[in-house]
Amino acid sequence: MGNMKAAVFVEPGRIVLDSKPIPEVGPLDALVKVTTTTICGTDVHILRGEYPVSKGLTIGHEPVGVIEKLGSAVTGYEEGQRVIAGAITPSGHSNACLCGQPSQDGAGTRHGFRPLGGWRFGNTIDGCQAEYVLVPDAMTNLASVPRELTDEQVLMCPDIMSTGFAGAESGGVKIGDTVAVFAQGPIGLCAAAGARLMGATTVIAVDTVRERLAMSRSLGVDHVVDFKAGDPVEAIRQLTDGRGVDVAIEALGTQGTFEGALRSLRPGGTLSSLGVYSSDLRIPLDAFSAGLGDNRIVTSLCPGGKERMRRLMSVIASGRVDLKPMVTHRFTLDEIEQAYELFANQRDGVLKVAITP
Amino acid sequence: MGNMKAAVFVEPGRIVLDSKPIPEVGPLDALVKVTTTTICGTDVHILRGEYPVSKGLTIGHEPVGVIEKLGSAVTGYEEGQRVIAGAITPSGHSNACLCGQPSQDGAGTRHGFRPLGGWRFGNTIDGCQAEYVLVPDAMTNLASVPRELTDEQVLMCPDIMSTGFAGAESGGVKIGDTVAVFAQGPIGLCAAAGARLMGATTVIAVDTVRERLAMSRSLGVDHVVDFKAGDPVEAIRQLTDGRGVDVAIEALGTQGTFEGALRSLRPGGTLSSLGVYSSDLRIPLDAFSAGLGDNRIVTSLCPGGKERMRRLMSVIASGRVDLKPMVTHRFTLDEIEQAYELFANQRDGVLKVAITP
Amino acid sequence: MGNMKAAVFVEPGRIVLDSKPIPEVGPLDALVKVTTTTICGTDVHILRGEYPVSKGLTIGHEPVGVIEKLGSAVTGYEEGQRVIAGAITPSGHSNACLCGQPSQDGAGTRHGFRPLGGWRFGNTIDGCQAEYVLVPDAMTNLASVPRELTDEQVLMCPDIMSTGFAGAESGGVKIGDTVAVFAQGPIGLCAAAGARLMGATTVIAVDTVRERLAMSRSLGVDHVVDFKAGDPVEAIRQLTDGRGVDVAIEALGTQGTFEGALRSLRPGGTLSSLGVYSSDLRIPLDAFSAGLGDNRIVTSLCPGGKERMRRLMSVIASGRVDLKPMVTHRFTLDEIEQAYELFANQRDGVLKVAITP
Amino acid sequence: MGNMKAAVFVEPGRIVLDSKPIPEVGPLDALVKVTTTTICGTDVHILRGEYPVSKGLTIGHEPVGVIEKLGSAVTGYEEGQRVIAGAITPSGHSNACLCGQPSQDGAGTRHGFRPLGGWRFGNTIDGCQAEYVLVPDAMTNLASVPRELTDEQVLMCPDIMSTGFAGAESGGVKIGDTVAVFAQGPIGLCAAAGARLMGATTVIAVDTVRERLAMSRSLGVDHVVDFKAGDPVEAIRQLTDGRGVDVAIEALGTQGTFEGALRSLRPGGTLSSLGVYSSDLRIPLDAFSAGLGDNRIVTSLCPGGKERMRRLMSVIASGRVDLKPMVTHRFTLDEIEQAYELFANQRDGVLKVAITP
Repeated sequence: MGNMKAAVFVEPGRIVLDSKPIPEVGPLDALVKVTTTTICGTDVHILRGEYPVSKGLTIGHEPVGVIEKLGSAVTGYEEGQRVIAGAITPSGHSNACLCGQPSQDGAGTRHGFRPLGGWRFGNTIDGCQAEYVLVPDAMTNLASVPRELTDEQVLMCPDIMSTGFAGAESGGVKIGDTVAVFAQGPIGLCAAAGARLMGATTVIAVDTVRERLAMSRSLGVDHVVDFKAGDPVEAIRQLTDGRGVDVAIEALGTQGTFEGALRSLRPGGTLSSLGVYSSDLRIPLDAFSAGLGDNRIVTSLCPGGKERMRRLMSVIASGRVDLKPMVTHRFTLDEIEQAYELFANQRDGVLKVAITP
Repeated sequence: MGNMKAAVFVEPGRIVLDSKPIPEVGPLDALVKVTTTTICGTDVHILRGEYPVSKGLTIGHEPVGVIEKLGSAVTGYEEGQRVIAGAITPSGHSNACLCGQPSQDGAGTRHGFRPLGGWRFGNTIDGCQAEYVLVPDAMTNLASVPRELTDEQVLMCPDIMSTGFAGAESGGVKIGDTVAVFAQGPIGLCAAAGARLMGATTVIAVDTVRERLAMSRSLGVDHVVDFKAGDPVEAIRQLTDGRGVDVAIEALGTQGTFEGALRSLRPGGTLSSLGVYSSDLRIPLDAFSAGLGDNRIVTSLCPGGKERMRRLMSVIASGRVDLKPMVTHRFTLDEIEQAYELFANQRDGVLKVAITP
Repeated sequence: MGNMKAAVFVEPGRIVLDSKPIPEVGPLDALVKVTTTTICGTDVHILRGEYPVSKGLTIGHEPVGVIEKLGSAVTGYEEGQRVIAGAITPSGHSNACLCGQPSQDGAGTRHGFRPLGGWRFGNTIDGCQAEYVLVPDAMTNLASVPRELTDEQVLMCPDIMSTGFAGAESGGVKIGDTVAVFAQGPIGLCAAAGARLMGATTVIAVDTVRERLAMSRSLGVDHVVDFKAGDPVEAIRQLTDGRGVDVAIEALGTQGTFEGALRSLRPGGTLSSLGVYSSDLRIPLDAFSAGLGDNRIVTSLCPGGKERMRRLMSVIASGRVDLKPMVTHRFTLDEIEQAYELFANQRDGVLKVAITP
Repeated sequence: MGNMKAAVFVEPGRIVLDSKPIPEVGPLDALVKVTTTTICGTDVHILRGEYPVSKGLTIGHEPVGVIEKLGSAVTGYEEGQRVIAGAITPSGHSNACLCGQPSQDGAGTRHGFRPLGGWRFGNTIDGCQAEYVLVPDAMTNLASVPRELTDEQVLMCPDIMSTGFAGAESGGVKIGDTVAVFAQGPIGLCAAAGARLMGATTVIAVDTVRERLAMSRSLGVDHVVDFKAGDPVEAIRQLTDGRGVDVAIEALGTQGTFEGALRSLRPGGTLSSLGVYSSDLRIPLDAFSAGLGDNRIVTSLCPGGKERMRRLMSVIASGRVDLKPMVTHRFTLDEIEQAYELFANQRDGVLKVAITP
């Protein structure tokens, strides 16, 4: 079918725009012509060699596009349809999927489970920072985009919004809860928005970057805490009048944020962890009540699948949450190396970039 | 009302039988004449000074007895009635109780939560290794013992059985689950029995003490793993044909058992922790899938309250689980110092002792 | 302690303002001087003799007031404190409470359960349409009102808001859900607000009264359906593009609203029923998929207790929901018979009245 | 591929053994050579014309067999493998599946939901009372049978056991619960076994057929109630000392059993309905506490999918439940018309029949 441009991992420190063949379409696949995509913090880990992927792999896991070609066994879609797919593309038929844990999908493995197995785009198969992307198990993963929503409006659905909201959902946020969110990068911002959306009545956001805290406020956060201005745990204790929070969401992946989240909890509270850690974690004995505090530590990998995407798009369409302001910069696919440079170095107050092939 | 004998904490290393006044009965209390009680691993921590309590406190939190006198505001009971009370005695009216977390009860504190606040007997108020014990918030805590059950049959209900079963319950054990239990002391044995009771179809118990593994088998465990005979995580992988377990229950309180439990999980599995830890815990990055494994770590403090006791006694009465063989030794209250000596040193294959005042 | 004015049930058709002794305070009670209260639809059922209560009973179950006197065993409060109590006043210590079902409290009965047993005010004990009300089990039920909230702002918490929100909570509303609410009286309005608060992205309200539909819109409902303008089930089908709703909330108590709610569900959807029915209900075979639709029908009695009240007041304090506009009319206690007249006949667009003794 | 024998619906009153072409295998299908199957109560409804299916359809939805041929897109299986598939064969990729409700699967429809849509075998596609059956969405549905289990041991997994256990699971049975099961046909028997397996400590079975009540006892039911010997609701009240049951499971599909189940509940209890009803249901006002009893009525269609089948087979393999005695009669496929005659008329104490092609 000819060639296409794609952002390809070459070696640690180098993701370059290259030319690759447009992929062949298997019976369960769909070929999607990408119209907008973005760069994720995970892609920066890949760029730096901190998360290993195969050389030559196309990076990117947040596709908005148009169906170019459907696999022979795919029904219920038509070519030309505007779609998104989640960053995580579960098969639908693995034991993990049938068990309610599609992100740990291990279709084809002996037991149907594989850690992080649902994450395929830009990890185990070619991703979507390219002109075309092949979506596996298309019937499970392609979600139709409502006409009234623009590409940029739905660009956060595949990963950032799904992951952030999962922080609130796995934390079991209830009406009247107090929730603290540690770190206000794109995922932390979405976690704060998700906690509010589920009925938390006091949402406290912790960060130090001015633009991020401003964005927190505009998403409806009740209190922001600058962790450079003093101990954030102490600040949260004061804001909660000594009670501690019902749910603390960790959204960075460091010992500091993990521990801060744990120490902010009321007895019996839940720590919902979203971060990608890069070293062992320590649970301090006192913060854990020696194991007797009825605490829960839950982790979530981004939920995927077309029903999840449909629901997230309905949040956008209903106006409940507006994430468009999170797109702070725009690039063409040809400029993607510059985009990585800006995003990886967190220049210019960047939150998320839009890449248009 | 005169004096009574009671096992009292004097200083680290010394719990002695002493004479104390029989307590006054407040309006919400009940005075219970103890007929049988026991010693818990936690009491040994107290004895050794590893868990600090006030000097002069009566130890013990597992009472079986007869109501001697009811507080003026207590209704629904009568003197002479045979009762038990849980090790944890929630007030019923704190915010923690009304929130579904009675073990973290903080009645009277500003927010109604206090870590471990529901644990009062032998911790913040006098316990039941005595001739009499004052049960606070009696209407919440006194559970009538069915005539057909002996003291020894219900002796495990207040703590061991409630805690052990909570390991399975908090882990969310489902029909068809595979569950591993790390350590087969009394609580681990009850956790294994609880997992089976909830529908686990493969229960794997890890320990090394011969008597305990024999008791595991008699409680219906499917496989026992001697951790001295090889890496128990590897053994569990083999027993599960490489899949890992749905739920792993930690029942000792060490880094080794915690880490073993974590490493035994399938992707998306739950670690249910029951142990009392005495130092910081480490979560190895790989065992935690860098935070992306959809894992949950949940902790449980022994559930109390009369409804819990009623349900546990119904398990005994129905014959579903028989814990009487766990009572391996018997002493009078006068012999309690010897009982501590035996139990603290795990002599003679002791599992639990019965103390009769 | 002298006498007080109270609205008393005399016989069907007659609730009159009368003089009664100010009640004696038992050890677990608190005497509250009522500063604001209101009339509920249930009170109208009582007035009409449709729901039987004892002659001479003081009516009313939605108190805002100030603690006048505390029982001898009550701690954690002080006289002069501003408080509310829920319409339902669970004991905290019954088996029902300890089982997670405080509204079915049966403290003192053999099993600790009694249908509707938690509803005591204006049902089995004197209520709060009076100068003073005795709050039973005060430590379980008295919730401190934050200084910044006015009486009218918290007046909906004891019943209307707690019941309405329970409709959404028991329905298990999730992010992205579509929810229909049948009837937009005060409880239906709160149910709609609760569904939105929990993350429903399409909330559809069904009623025909102009003022109510206007109020629905101001509370954030996405679509209103006038059931007199056509079949509401058909309208909901169209609004959901043929899918049906995830959760339908019934908020009136008639066969029509019950059946409409059932017929609006998608396969596997949940009908959450709040209404007080006055005759048998019929489940049509087709609407129920012959019992094979994985449907759930759940009912909820108003949740009470101080933690519930605290959470509802935090919803108000955070500005997430503003229910003050629901108070459409104001009366003094001396005018309560007029207030009943207006409210019972739904005159003048009345939603809720405020009564100030 | 030639022809095969199949039990085909001709017209109400007539299911006959006929010859049909062996089906073609599509890319996602698997052709399974049936080694054992059975007749279900639902098949009798079809026979009688009470549940309409197309003329010429092959009946039957409980297949045990061997993979004859795999579709071109199917991976993870091999020809010759022994397998079962559930009565319900979800696609895995519909919105219903991704929402946790695979039995209401509507793959290919606009919204991905269709009432009972997951039930395809012998309903919307050819079933398995034949020499061969085509299993759709094979990767979602084919479950490998462990070598140590015989055909008859796993014959209940596809429907009876999955449905019966779902009654206990949807009812939320917990440790210490009291559960009543109305009707002890094969599904009711499995519901009782499922309730016990989940930790119910008092299981009460209601029926009148002597063989069924005997089978109840052998499956571990604690009390049997003969509804012809007196009012079963009254008997249950007495057995529960006036308390009522936590969960009542309806397993027949009549007003009488539905109402009996509802009336047996304690306040706040759950009615879990499994029956296929054939007329409207009535909810008596008093039995429903006028809608204020915090009751739940939940319905379940048989859960399917390979993970469900795997778990049910592990229940059998572990020896927790032994359902082999439920197979009371055996026939060859050639004798299937006689088998229908016996089964439809409930002759000779029949519970389930095994049919071997």
